[in-house]
Amino acid sequence: MDIKQYVVEKARKAKAASRALANLTAEVKNNALIKMAAGLEKEASRLIAENKKDLVDAEKKGLSKAMIDRLTLNPDRIKAMADGLREVAVLPDPVGEVLRMWRRPNGMQVGKMRVPIGLIGIIYESRPNVTADSAALCIKSGNAVLLRGGSEAVYSNTAIADVLNKAGAEAGIPDGAVSFIENPDRACVLEILKTKQFVDLIIPRGGEGLINFVSENSTIPVIKHDKGVCHVYVDDKADLSMAEEICFNAKVQRPGTCNAMEAMLVHKDVAKTFLPKMLKRFQDAKVEIRGCGRTVETVPGTKAAVEKDWDTEYNELILNAKVVDSMEDAMAHIAAHGSQHSEAIVTTDYGKAMRFLREVDASAVFINASTRLNDGFEFGLGAEIGISTTRIHARGPMGLEELTSTKFIVFGTGQIRK
Amino acid sequence: MDIKQYVVEKARKAKAASRALANLTAEVKNNALIKMAAGLEKEASRLIAENKKDLVDAEKKGLSKAMIDRLTLNPDRIKAMADGLREVAVLPDPVGEVLRMWRRPNGMQVGKMRVPIGLIGIIYESRPNVTADSAALCIKSGNAVLLRGGSEAVYSNTAIADVLNKAGAEAGIPDGAVSFIENPDRACVLEILKTKQFVDLIIPRGGEGLINFVSENSTIPVIKHDKGVCHVYVDDKADLSMAEEICFNAKVQRPGTCNAMEAMLVHKDVAKTFLPKMLKRFQDAKVEIRGCGRTVETVPGTKAAVEKDWDTEYNELILNAKVVDSMEDAMAHIAAHGSQHSEAIVTTDYGKAMRFLREVDASAVFINASTRLNDGFEFGLGAEIGISTTRIHARGPMGLEELTSTKFIVFGTGQIRK
Repeated sequence: MDIKQYVVEKARKAKAASRALANLTAEVKNNALIKMAAGLEKEASRLIAENKKDLVDAEKKGLSKAMIDRLTLNPDRIKAMADGLREVAVLPDPVGEVLRMWRRPNGMQVGKMRVPIGLIGIIYESRPNVTADSAALCIKSGNAVLLRGGSEAVYSNTAIADVLNKAGAEAGIPDGAVSFIENPDRACVLEILKTKQFVDLIIPRGGEGLINFVSENSTIPVIKHDKGVCHVYVDDKADLSMAEEICFNAKVQRPGTCNAMEAMLVHKDVAKTFLPKMLKRFQDAKVEIRGCGRTVETVPGTKAAVEKDWDTEYNELILNAKVVDSMEDAMAHIAAHGSQHSEAIVTTDYGKAMRFLREVDASAVFINASTRLNDGFEFGLGAEIGISTTRIHARGPMGLEELTSTKFIVFGTGQIRK
Repeated sequence: MDIKQYVVEKARKAKAASRALANLTAEVKNNALIKMAAGLEKEASRLIAENKKDLVDAEKKGLSKAMIDRLTLNPDRIKAMADGLREVAVLPDPVGEVLRMWRRPNGMQVGKMRVPIGLIGIIYESRPNVTADSAALCIKSGNAVLLRGGSEAVYSNTAIADVLNKAGAEAGIPDGAVSFIENPDRACVLEILKTKQFVDLIIPRGGEGLINFVSENSTIPVIKHDKGVCHVYVDDKADLSMAEEICFNAKVQRPGTCNAMEAMLVHKDVAKTFLPKMLKRFQDAKVEIRGCGRTVETVPGTKAAVEKDWDTEYNELILNAKVVDSMEDAMAHIAAHGSQHSEAIVTTDYGKAMRFLREVDASAVFINASTRLNDGFEFGLGAEIGISTTRIHARGPMGLEELTSTKFIVFGTGQIRK
């Protein structure tokens, strides 16, 4: 079978499964997720054996230590994956929820009901837990899923998908609801992006190269989980000890994430008080600082930033620092250099807080809180499939609700169009 | 200037305008819409003179009478266009609305606020009123708009856009917020679809050819307003006189629309009572009937339908009629042949009504009401930009709310990620 035919057959089968899946009760879906979790734990030794094959290949290919670590499965990680499925099982079912309902002058009642999107294609890299996480979120939201993992994890992912499917079948999940593309040929990705008669939405999860490739080649709607060039603005009216804790957390708590701070903007009137102590704390935590002219002036010995630094997502312990004249100045910098991901202000001034909240364009805007809190769990959405940087359909953390569409429902008593 | 450069400059300017527009108050936007309406009425003779040029070209090109009628502007139509702007002015401003707000265990308050999408590209055909309608809906929802009308209406559209821009400028609407592509070269459309660094969403409005071209060539998200192959299912438990009124309305009231019924499905137990009278009424209204075998048997002399009829959107006075064994049979037919647009059941049976509502997949599902009611005005959304057949972002009638995105907003007191 050629690649195109192989992918189309997988997608066709998954789409057919999506129709049956859409009408399953929460009870059936939750029970399936719990059975899948048990299946992963029961088959742990087989999963670890399959994972070994990926690890041997990874060594041969000379993948970095960090990548090999992300790829590795062990009993703890398998338990975490199973627990993740159980957490999704206890979340409320979004399908069938009626968002609101109103009555029209002619007496008909109109409402909006959440329904599954249909078939979701997920194209991802590296960590095998994404296979289980994505499948769980899609099943719970009534969507079938077409999964395409990275070739480096093909043995692990194939085994995980197989365990999920067997457990799902026992629990009444239709065959094909979790369809995994086992063929590691990269041409499969391009074929998936062309199956618009079957796949309703593509979610790429991975590096910039993958995301760009997908969004440039897809004729199916794509929700991107793109990079974050995030800022914290420390206002002249800030509580400076709060500002210090927030800035430190936003940079250091987990620098490799998309919601970590990449540049700190400090009002000129507090720069002399705030910057020396703050930068000392960062340096003690091994954060390299790249400052604007006034930062370097205020804290001599600081390395000077170059123009492209202001647009860079470092994803590591490097931080840009800039002294600004005003909040307007900070907002202009954010509009010019930010990626509309996560933006924060620290201030005690009500008017400025409200203006920053209203005018700054980002998937999440924070007053007096760390950008690191832009996250589905932290926001209380339950599990998330990622943080959308797309402005359409879902923006920010995507949980179960964001994996649904809606339909209008009408209760009539014989109404016709006049 | 070459085509690419011309389009990119228009898009760049419109995107810049979108940032200022996003923060205008409802007062400024409403005032601008009222001034634009007055401008259209004041400049009616100029608009009619420009429209004449299009009409002369249309005659030369031999366009159909129906197309020429749709293209024509006269004082009544200009007044209707102006009234449309005034109706949008009185609708509530969706921007800044906080959808809900909740408190997390760590004390931070998280909410979702409606924000404009940014820059919306609208690619449309024929009727010049779309220029004014689209501009009004986009401005009110805080979005800049890049308009590309059909070449057959280029004089009319250019003049309308010019009037809107002048009136808008006087009322504080940023320059470029309503950007019209005056160059009639078709290559412009392709260039618009490539400006993903500026345009956030594309909405095509027009025939199937246009919609397919746009969705196949765009790397920007597209919300389609596609065809409707809509059904009314008359259950054995239907109030048959209600069923007759609904079916007649769904087919005849305005057959050229996407929410008109294309096929009527009738339960076998009521076919003998219902069909003869119903088909007679349709025939009196000059509706051609194409029936299944049992329909032809029940009402001899009815023309037999061929297989492809069941998938056809006629958009005229032709109707398919089919006798089905059960509601399940009707739902299977709808799943196989419908376009997930507007689907109705007529029944007095509670259980069947609820099951049809839940299981039928369409942008709107009706119990005991006409499919023709799938419309923004009828649903109470105010004006609409069309009926989305896309499953992502907005499905069914798209009003002002559907032209917005959201951002998460967080009110903190120093919260950090643990």
